[in-house]
Parts: sequence; structure tokens; C-alpha cells
Amino acid sequence: MTEEKKSDATKKVGGWRQKSQTVVYDNPWIQVRHEEVERPNGTEGIYGVVHFKSRAIGVIALDEYDNTWLVKQSRYPNDETTIEIPEGGGPLDEAPLEAAKRELKEETGLSAHSWELLMELRTSNSVTDEVGYIYLATDLTSGEQSLEDTEDIELLKVPFKQAVDMAMNGEIVDAMSLAALFKVALMKTKL
Amino acid sequence: MTEEKKSDATKKVGGWRQKSQTVVYDNPWIQVRHEEVERPNGTEGIYGVVHFKSRAIGVIALDEYDNTWLVKQSRYPNDETTIEIPEGGGPLDEAPLEAAKRELKEETGLSAHSWELLMELRTSNSVTDEVGYIYLATDLTSGEQSLEDTEDIELLKVPFKQAVDMAMNGEIVDAMSLAALFKVALMKTKL
Repeated sequence: MTEEKKSDATKKVGGWRQKSQTVVYDNPWIQVRHEEVERPNGTEGIYGVVHFKSRAIGVIALDEYDNTWLVKQSRYPNDETTIEIPEGGGPLDEAPLEAAKRELKEETGLSAHSWELLMELRTSNSVTDEVGYIYLATDLTSGEQSLEDTEDIELLKVPFKQAVDMAMNGEIVDAMSLAALFKVALMKTKL
Repeated sequence: MTEEKKSDATKKVGGWRQKSQTVVYDNPWIQVRHEEVERPNGTEGIYGVVHFKSRAIGVIALDEYDNTWLVKQSRYPNDETTIEIPEGGGPLDEAPLEAAKRELKEETGLSAHSWELLMELRTSNSVTDEVGYIYLATDLTSGEQSLEDTEDIELLKVPFKQAVDMAMNGEIVDAMSLAALFKVALMKTKL
């Protein structure tokens, strides 16, 4: 599980230089790399980088009555239950839109005839390279949920305004959900 | 660097059970844990959890002319330069507000006489336990920047409306920055 790449100060972004890279952990979802680096000010240091093998995919689905869907689910790393927009992982070699269609269908049973890329984001870029894509899905058709075996989910259908209130008052704390709900709310105020 | 904790299915959130935990990587900022788990549907699985030793701290500073401060900086994990609100890490045993005051001072030179907790969030909760706190800082006094040796930062002072436009049009992609700028923009539309 360990491999090493050594070179004389490979150029990286800004003033950073990568001097070595060792894979210290690898599973189907992440790879953790310990790197020796030269910092922007020229001093020596280390960097632990968490590489994500999937993109974070999120979907805001809106029906013709301006309802949206939220999911209440357990999040293992923080040992807590949170309320979020439908989210899931999409492999890096899969088009993000295809992953979004699959995740929406799995978690809510919904299919959408209209898809719009709402935003691209970096979730935690001091340590990870995780990239997120969030879509706005409209013109909806309902169907059957088909959850993955890691998902224990309670589905909530709420007026979009209520979802935004939950984001404003702290009931929703997931960063992707917050950014996406707020962005759609701002788009609506500008119509 | 390796320690093991074994038990008969420690209870975790929702349907998850933790069966073992092994620390596979540890540095001053993160600890990576490989865990054997029982999934919500009862099947056996593994979970790689990235524990953060710091909170993510962000600050939106607003002056009396409704200007705000953004920083353009290199982000090593994604090998890219991004534009963000002032952000940094605050150790878990330090009050988040103290970390916010320090980060704002370091990156912008500003001190603020008024501080309000704008939001608490989870940045990437499928893999990490990172928690973020973002503050709104007003009633500002200017001073000297004092950057850490990992920071190569270009400071931008822009009208708040321009920062929101940059978030809306995709020039800003950092999730904490997006959530915070959008929330303040919504708070302003409701005044």
C-alpha cells in the first residue's frame, strides 16, 4: 500500500514545492498521501493530503409548487444525524450529471426532465482535493427510492422557503446544502 | 503511530456500529482512522475517517461603506489558486472566536469591535469530522498583516455586492466562502 515518488522539488501551485510523496492509506473512496514540501516562504515542511476518488454530488429538486426534498441521515464521521439536500458520491470517471441523476433517483425516487448545473465547489481545500457539483433539477416525475446499503434515510418534502429557513436558522449545517439552498434563494430574489 | 481499539460493535449514530479502529496516519493537523463497521443494513464494511485537529474558521469583515475583504491564495491539495473569505484553522481546544480574531488580523491586519457568529457548518461529512465556524466582523480598525509561513496571500478589498457576484458567477468556489457570502446577502435582502 506504500509507494514513493522522489524528485527535486516538483513545482506546485504558488510558492509550494512537492519534494516527496508517500501513500500512507488507500481505500475505495480516499487515498491519503504524506508529502514533504517546501513552503511558500522557503522553509521545509510536511503536508498530509486526502485525495478523494469521488466527487461530491448534490441536487436541489424543485416541483411546480416550489417544494423541495431534504434527507435526514446519519453521518458516521461526526456521529450525528443531519438534514441535507440529496447528496452522494460520483466516481471521477463518471460525468457529474449522471451521478446526480442516479443519486436523486436513489434517495428520493424522483426523475427530472430539466437539469441545470447550479455550482461547482471545493468542500475542504486545506486538506482534501474533494470537488463538489450541485445541480438544480426541475420538471419532476416521482418513482421508487432505491437506497444504497450505507444509507438510512428519512425523506422530507418541504416548501423551498422552509428549507431556506432551516438553513438560515442552523437546522441545516452541511456546507454543500447551505451554499446551494442560499444560492437558489438569491436567484429567486432577483427574478 | 498505530494503535488499535477492539470492541463488540460499539454503538454509533443511526444504524452504524463501529467494530474496530486503527490509526493509520497522524500529523499535527489530521488523524486518519481505518475502521471496521457494521452498516445500517447489517452488512460488514470498512470506513476511512479523517479526523481534523482544528476547526475551519472563516470571517466576513464588513466596513461602514459595505466593503469586504477576500484573499487570493494557493491551495496545495488541489494545486490551484482560489479566492476566498479570510480563513484559517483553530485548534479544537481554542475558542472559535479567538481563532477568528487571530486569523482576521493575520490575513488582513484588521481588528473588529463587533463579532457575530454567522454560521456553524460541516465541510465534508462523508469522510471527515471537520467543523467550521464563520463570523461576521464589523466596526473595523485597520493594522498590519502578519502572515503564517504557509500563506502566500494577495488581499482584495471589494464592495460586498461584488464579492457576492463573484460567488454567484463561479469565481469563488470555496464552500465556506459561498455559504457565508450568500447567507449575509440573504440577511441584507430581508432588512
